[in-house]
Formats: sequence, C-alpha cells, structure tokens
Amino acid sequence: MYAQVKQMIAQQIRSGAWPVHYRVPSEAELVQELGFSRMTVNRALRELTAEGLLVRMQGVGTFVAQPKARSALFAVNNIADEIAARSHRHHSRVLRLAQEPAASEQAHALDIRAGQPVFHSIIVHYEDDIPIQLEDRYVNVGVAPEYAQQDFTRSTPYEYLSRVAPLTAGEHVVEAILAKPRECQLLQIDRGEPCLLIRRRTWSGDRPVTLARLIHPGSRHRLEGKFTT
Amino acid sequence: MYAQVKQMIAQQIRSGAWPVHYRVPSEAELVQELGFSRMTVNRALRELTAEGLLVRMQGVGTFVAQPKARSALFAVNNIADEIAARSHRHHSRVLRLAQEPAASEQAHALDIRAGQPVFHSIIVHYEDDIPIQLEDRYVNVGVAPEYAQQDFTRSTPYEYLSRVAPLTAGEHVVEAILAKPRECQLLQIDRGEPCLLIRRRTWSGDRPVTLARLIHPGSRHRLEGKFTT
Repeated sequence: MYAQVKQMIAQQIRSGAWPVHYRVPSEAELVQELGFSRMTVNRALRELTAEGLLVRMQGVGTFVAQPKARSALFAVNNIADEIAARSHRHHSRVLRLAQEPAASEQAHALDIRAGQPVFHSIIVHYEDDIPIQLEDRYVNVGVAPEYAQQDFTRSTPYEYLSRVAPLTAGEHVVEAILAKPRECQLLQIDRGEPCLLIRRRTWSGDRPVTLARLIHPGSRHRLEGKFTT
Repeated sequence: MYAQVKQMIAQQIRSGAWPVHYRVPSEAELVQELGFSRMTVNRALRELTAEGLLVRMQGVGTFVAQPKARSALFAVNNIADEIAARSHRHHSRVLRLAQEPAASEQAHALDIRAGQPVFHSIIVHYEDDIPIQLEDRYVNVGVAPEYAQQDFTRSTPYEYLSRVAPLTAGEHVVEAILAKPRECQLLQIDRGEPCLLIRRRTWSGDRPVTLARLIHPGSRHRLEGKFTT
C-alpha cells in the first residue's frame, strides 16, 4: 500500500508536475486526496525523504528535493563553487567568528598548547535556501592571522585559507551520526535524521591549518570519490 | 544530571572496571544503583552509545564497546585483515550466494544487459561477535565465474576477487542512512541508529568486477583517509 503511494508521488516528481522545491501537500491533504490511511501516507513520505526525493524542513513543510548534493571524498573543495556548479545559489549564515582559548582536542589537532588562542567559526551553508552543511571550524592563529576579520557571508573560509595557507595535505574521518538538538534546528531537520559527519584536518606544508567538523543531513548530501591502485 | 551519569559510566570504562564486551547493568538496575530517574539514565546510555563508548545489541543488551572500527576511505581492504589487525576475531554469516538475473541498476553498473545472469551474495561480517558490516554484493559472472562456489565463511569475496580479477580502480559513494528493518535486525541495531552506507564499484582493467552496498552501524564504524594535493 505505502509502495503504491510512493510510486504515485514519485510519478508526480518524474513527470515534472511537482518540480524541484515544490511544496508537497500535507499528510492530512494527501490522506484526503489519495484515500489511504495516515500511517500509509506517513510511511511513504518518510521513505521518499530517506531516498532523497523529498526534503523535510522541520517546522516548514515537505518539498521536492533537488538531487542530492555531492562532494569530493578525497579532496577539499569550495562549497560555494560546488553549489554554483550545480547552478544553484549559495549563501551562508555566520553564527560565530571569534578568537577563544583552545580546548585540548583542538590544541592537539592544531599542534598548539591548550589555552592558547585559536579562531573558531560556525557557519551554516545553504543551497537554494536549504541548509546542506553546518561547518564548525577551528583555525590556527599563527597561519591565518586575519581569519576573524573576514566577512564569510561574502566569501568562504576555503577561499581565505587557500590564499594565506595553500592546502597541501588533508585528513578525512567520516561517520554517520545523529546531530545534537541545536544542530538539527540549524539544519532544519528532524532529530532522527541520520547525518554525515566529516572531521577534516588540513595542513599547509608541515603546519596544521584547520580542524573542521562538517555536518550534512544524510538526505541532502553524499560523498563521492574514485581511486586507482 | 545525565552528564553526571555519563561521567560515572565513562569512569567505570576508563578504569577498566568494565572491560570491553562487559554487559552494562540494565536501565532498571542503574536507576536503582545510582538513584537517578529512568529518563536521566536512558539519556546517558543513549549518548554514550552515540559517542561509541557503549554498543547496544537490539534484543540482547548494552555492552562496553571496542573502539570504533576504522576502514580506509580511499582504498579497498580485506575486512578480515582489518579486523585481525585490531587483534579481533572475524567471522561471517552467508545469507545468500546465488546466480540471478540482473536488475537494471546492477546491469548498468556492471556493464551487462538487464536480465543477464549476475552473482549475488549477502554476508554479515562480525568483529568479536558484533556485526559491523552488512555486505550486499553483485559480481560480474564473466570476470569471476566460480564466485558462487566459494565458501565465504572461510575466506572473503575480497580474497577470491583479488585472485581472479585484481582491482585496478574503485569508486566510493558514501551516505548516512537509516537501514531497512530487516537490515537493522541483521546488524542487531535499533531502527533509529544512523548507518554509514558505502556503495562501491570496482574495476579490473576496463572490466567492472563488482557493485557492493556496504552498511555499517554508525556507532561501530568510521572511515578514515589522508590525501595530499
């Protein structure tokens, strides 16, 4: 039964009757229109969201998704460029941009002593108004001294850091997690939505530049990479 | 309050009083022992599980976790070797090993026609009796003709395929997902546990060898890789 509802909705999307960003009728409306039970409709919507055809914005509604954003598994790219390459609009919201004393985890990663100053930024990146990445980043003060003076609504940390400390090596640790309640709110996702977490460390020569925790809603993002032996 | 409970449990683990694989007292027992509310104890256990200190085996109990299994982000390794390298014991359960007609997705990936025969295996890999990977794999019949005759409780698809069609290139697509109910059962996880899905395609020369869907419980596995520019 729910498979039938899924198919009907998928058909609306494929035919273009419901274009990308189209607001899908509410659960109650679909129950009335399609004549299936609320449980059936709910399951269909949940599965289509998990499969990436729909996107649920917590407290806003359910929309037809743009195809899942992709980014590189083995490289570091500018998120603004990745979004532009998909002919979408990037904008960002800067929640924090300040200097603070390094906690031991950050100090260890950036090869400084705990308590020494470190830059800390928290930025939400949007693709056509849908949040696709929460970037929580610590930056080595010695390597990028003017980090806190940048306007990251007009450029990205990637752009500034590439200029002052060109990347020569990186490390990715990838996990599937549930984001914290505050992070879910910023990403406009349900608390139960699995997220892709990338913990990235980069170096410029032998100097560690940055430690970033990049959280992506699982339904809106994937990582891709090819390799040869 | 729950942070206090977390700390008390973490302390038991760090001190070695509760070693790896130790069965943690039940929620009810902890409520009685520690004098905190059930809600507080539940939250502490949930967060410690999300952080990878505990592992919940659906229907079995909660245990002290071995450190999260790691595997390579940019390479293909033998899971049995990865587990052995951690001084743990690998074993596997073969749920399916047969020839079947290729559906269009698999046919496309393996460069054959839909309906042509393809090998299909489904294997659960265990690290010290904890399921860490559900491997659902399609294999090109022309490249590995004796695939279905192998005993994958004694070796792994990796070992056989490396012998008959040495890997020269691979592709990884990584996503965070909720596994299907049947998959959760096989992996002994709660339905709400985020999983790391790797879709892997490999080539030997110009011939596609295999298309695999590898699902890992998020709390038990992570991917790591270093790269240079």
